[in-house]
Amino acid sequence: MENFLKIINGEIPSVKLYEDSKCIVILDINPVAKGHCLIIPKQVFATVGECPIELLSHLFDVVKLVDAKQRKVLACDATNIFINNGKAAGQEIPHLHIHVVPRYENDGKKIAAKHDEYVKGEMLILGQALKI
Amino acid sequence: MENFLKIINGEIPSVKLYEDSKCIVILDINPVAKGHCLIIPKQVFATVGECPIELLSHLFDVVKLVDAKQRKVLACDATNIFINNGKAAGQEIPHLHIHVVPRYENDGKKIAAKHDEYVKGEMLILGQALKI
Repeated sequence: MENFLKIINGEIPSVKLYEDSKCIVILDINPVAKGHCLIIPKQVFATVGECPIELLSHLFDVVKLVDAKQRKVLACDATNIFINNGKAAGQEIPHLHIHVVPRYENDGKKIAAKHDEYVKGEMLILGQALKI
Repeated sequence: MENFLKIINGEIPSVKLYEDSKCIVILDINPVAKGHCLIIPKQVFATVGECPIELLSHLFDVVKLVDAKQRKVLACDATNIFINNGKAAGQEIPHLHIHVVPRYENDGKKIAAKHDEYVKGEMLILGQALKI
């Protein structure tokens, strides 16, 4: 069984901040910043694409609670909210979860990644291909 | 007027992939990876905390469309979905928007940030303070 299910079942200890019938919130043991929370649905879906919008919507209701609590208790100035949606995006456990990381002015936590650059005309062509 | 409103109003050009009554999807002009999309609500809320859950839920319905389209058209292996929720978290325009970045195995785009470490007992104390 993967670790998030073991945590949900109480087989692995965790610092739990919230629980309802659909999800739990725990502290990440390897935090980007102290207070870094994970919102984890009890039902397992690997990715956002597989997760029904009703559950995703509930998870974001809980994200709002977590974000408000972090701002109040930690006096943080902002939060990064993110989903590593698949292994190639840094998802370590194939069980959808949402990160909420408290951020402070000049905290040196700039979340950096090398950027790409479009050549002339490339953006329009890609835009056509990606039209929904 | 801030740039996203100018884009929504057509005063600044953009490569638009989708539009409905509540939001637009455009290509980010400074992409982490080519095809990097922004989902932008037409009504302005600075942060997730200010945005009603009904709208947030709709935006994630559109995130699901964008994620599926990127995977299909770009053959990416995964996506990073994130919200820089406030200036200190890297939000450049105080108008909530959601990033969706296509990711590939070994694409060298590791989104890195310096991590914090809890000292013994600290996690439990913080967990108490952050209980919802």
